[in-house]
Amino acid sequence: MKSDKNPLSNAAASVDRGAWTDTDTVWPIETWLFNRFMQLIGEPAISVVFWDDREHYRCPHTIPVARMRFADRSTFWRLFANPNLEFGDGYSAGRIRIEGDLVTFIEALYEAKIRRTRPGILQQFVKRGLARPRRNSLAGSRDNIQHHYDLGNDFYRLWLDEEMAYTCAYFTDPSVTLEKAQAAKLDHIARKLQLRPGEEVVEAGCGWGGLARHFARWYGVKVRAYNISPSQIAYARERAKAERLDDRIEYIEDDYRTIQGTYDAFVSVGMLEHVGAEHYATLGQVVDRVLKDNGRGLIHSIGQIRPEPPSAWNEQRIFPGANPPTLRRMMDIFEGPGLSVLDVENIRLHYAKTIEHWLARYEAHEAGVRDMFDDFFVRAWRLYLAASIASFRAGALELYQVVFARPGKNDMAWTRAHLYRD
Amino acid sequence: MKSDKNPLSNAAASVDRGAWTDTDTVWPIETWLFNRFMQLIGEPAISVVFWDDREHYRCPHTIPVARMRFADRSTFWRLFANPNLEFGDGYSAGRIRIEGDLVTFIEALYEAKIRRTRPGILQQFVKRGLARPRRNSLAGSRDNIQHHYDLGNDFYRLWLDEEMAYTCAYFTDPSVTLEKAQAAKLDHIARKLQLRPGEEVVEAGCGWGGLARHFARWYGVKVRAYNISPSQIAYARERAKAERLDDRIEYIEDDYRTIQGTYDAFVSVGMLEHVGAEHYATLGQVVDRVLKDNGRGLIHSIGQIRPEPPSAWNEQRIFPGANPPTLRRMMDIFEGPGLSVLDVENIRLHYAKTIEHWLARYEAHEAGVRDMFDDFFVRAWRLYLAASIASFRAGALELYQVVFARPGKNDMAWTRAHLYRD
Repeated sequence: MKSDKNPLSNAAASVDRGAWTDTDTVWPIETWLFNRFMQLIGEPAISVVFWDDREHYRCPHTIPVARMRFADRSTFWRLFANPNLEFGDGYSAGRIRIEGDLVTFIEALYEAKIRRTRPGILQQFVKRGLARPRRNSLAGSRDNIQHHYDLGNDFYRLWLDEEMAYTCAYFTDPSVTLEKAQAAKLDHIARKLQLRPGEEVVEAGCGWGGLARHFARWYGVKVRAYNISPSQIAYARERAKAERLDDRIEYIEDDYRTIQGTYDAFVSVGMLEHVGAEHYATLGQVVDRVLKDNGRGLIHSIGQIRPEPPSAWNEQRIFPGANPPTLRRMMDIFEGPGLSVLDVENIRLHYAKTIEHWLARYEAHEAGVRDMFDDFFVRAWRLYLAASIASFRAGALELYQVVFARPGKNDMAWTRAHLYRD
Repeated sequence: MKSDKNPLSNAAASVDRGAWTDTDTVWPIETWLFNRFMQLIGEPAISVVFWDDREHYRCPHTIPVARMRFADRSTFWRLFANPNLEFGDGYSAGRIRIEGDLVTFIEALYEAKIRRTRPGILQQFVKRGLARPRRNSLAGSRDNIQHHYDLGNDFYRLWLDEEMAYTCAYFTDPSVTLEKAQAAKLDHIARKLQLRPGEEVVEAGCGWGGLARHFARWYGVKVRAYNISPSQIAYARERAKAERLDDRIEYIEDDYRTIQGTYDAFVSVGMLEHVGAEHYATLGQVVDRVLKDNGRGLIHSIGQIRPEPPSAWNEQRIFPGANPPTLRRMMDIFEGPGLSVLDVENIRLHYAKTIEHWLARYEAHEAGVRDMFDDFFVRAWRLYLAASIASFRAGALELYQVVFARPGKNDMAWTRAHLYRD
């Protein structure tokens, strides 16, 4: 069934469609320019074939891991004009093709970038490709979140697990199933929070509500869960009712800034990426207001080592308003109210593994996605998933779980050994 | 044997010595002012007796946990003039006495401070009592470190463990001995670093050299350890030779900024407190320069939730140049070279427990300390140890262990479970 919610239909229309192979001769200046560009981005381990079907770049240090092809001159020059946006759009439109594994190709780009010690020149060069994320005011957040999360539950159901968890799973062993790893993530968080039966938990940004269901079912706690995506809230309420958990869970369609009440634990999994650094101090005030004296909290978020603006393509096509924080920036949440950080765990490779599962399921349902949307969408989301795997593998993105409590809370577990007991 | 290195002899001489009880009448303005001051610092759960032997302050909310006594009017007004310095000097000179447990008394002060949400007014009031730490240039660091660490190995031997570890131990269980907990700390660090036999480790700030001995003996690695305290280096070299570890350990009397060579692991335990925030970026450059591509590192340091300047008393009498970082500030080390933070563990209660052991041993050797120095020194160091316990218990100080590696280092342990296996 065709979805009426394809947010990429305008983008697809804006990309020219010509014949795949343009027989125009490649000018020497084009080869020279492209090689200069490859030097600037650290000479990634790829080769590049132009529209004359000939190789014009080949990594000088090592055997290329994948090959990129330009359909035509127009795509080539668009890429120069705005590399960050046009690589994604060119790929989505089928004007840029990758031969070999897409994830490995993108990993090669990240590895080249990280090898370069000083990003100065490149930053200047690709500045136009970097975006200022859209603002996450109360109204802006709704627009941004709906662009992504309201693509339809049917779409996400195709490639997420049963519980519709759309955040990093925790693989106690890399070989366990996605379903088990998503449940293990929730157990890991519940253990970090040291939940006790009868306690009250508030969740900021609850997605399709899986954490609340898991905590209510297995830890005997009450959960009040906030989310501004109507379709996610509707789904979450329906499932809680069907599973007779609705006496212990309250899903509220509202912004984290409106949280009322006081709680034993505050938890937020995969929301901070969408909060915007300028609102971290506000989030800290919310936590301070709603946490009981004896309370503790956990924030699980994609992060980065250094502050880098999001790519224009990701910002415009996939995830408006998203901007993963550095650990330094996250301290804006905790320092104001004087909360004590107890534990930070970086599980970025678990996110690479999680998205490998998603991409495999996505590929298996490619036809279904094409039916709902179109070919441009299919390729755009493939690129998004593949690039995400590559980012987490290369360390261009991190995944932080941060546990915190008020200072002087002295009844927490003496060591972290309890997290690892069977 | 009298030590010729008593750094507090001038301070002791500067404090007036009068009769213990001054029979002068207390003026109403003094009672009023003192109660106003107690309100400003959050009404700590103590009572206070003035030189007329009568109680002039009593916490209105709860039963006082300890009582403070002023010897005379002069001590009272000195405290008002410079609370942070004069409390310590007054206590050390015996002009301020605490009845009840000293640690509990100081904890009550910290708890009151933390209860107060806005420190603004108090900060203004006691500003004179807060110090700018001395600068830690290459020469300045030497002076600062020698003030504290070169009090003499004989002094520290009285109350530290066998291996002379002067940093937070790790108690797998609160009831284990200090000796076991200090060894467990080193094992915990070695596991976090995932050391393998034959690897090369560099240590910045090695104290009396215990970590290097432990790693060389039990993990089969080579260690090059830097320290600018001559008496510590001399001790460390002697022990390594006696224990036939000198083929695997090199102790170097020099600053961390001069570290040469490249290593599989970088480790620093209890040095960062003395580095000074303005040098964190430099430390990051050093780490970046000496760490192999596949290397990883660990920094273990006292920390704090919010940036607070050190107390004037601690700065002038005990630990010049010391200033525990916030986690935000620590990111100055990692962000520049783009190092990835993998794990942060806050074990502040382990430091409270460690210093409880030290204080008990110190009290047991009180006579020995008095023989080496004098009564003022005995009380000053008792206050320092007791205040440290109280700080870690109340969460006024934290203890962070931060593990890091270069981005894209994908062969680290998949989870942290290996840290907790027997």
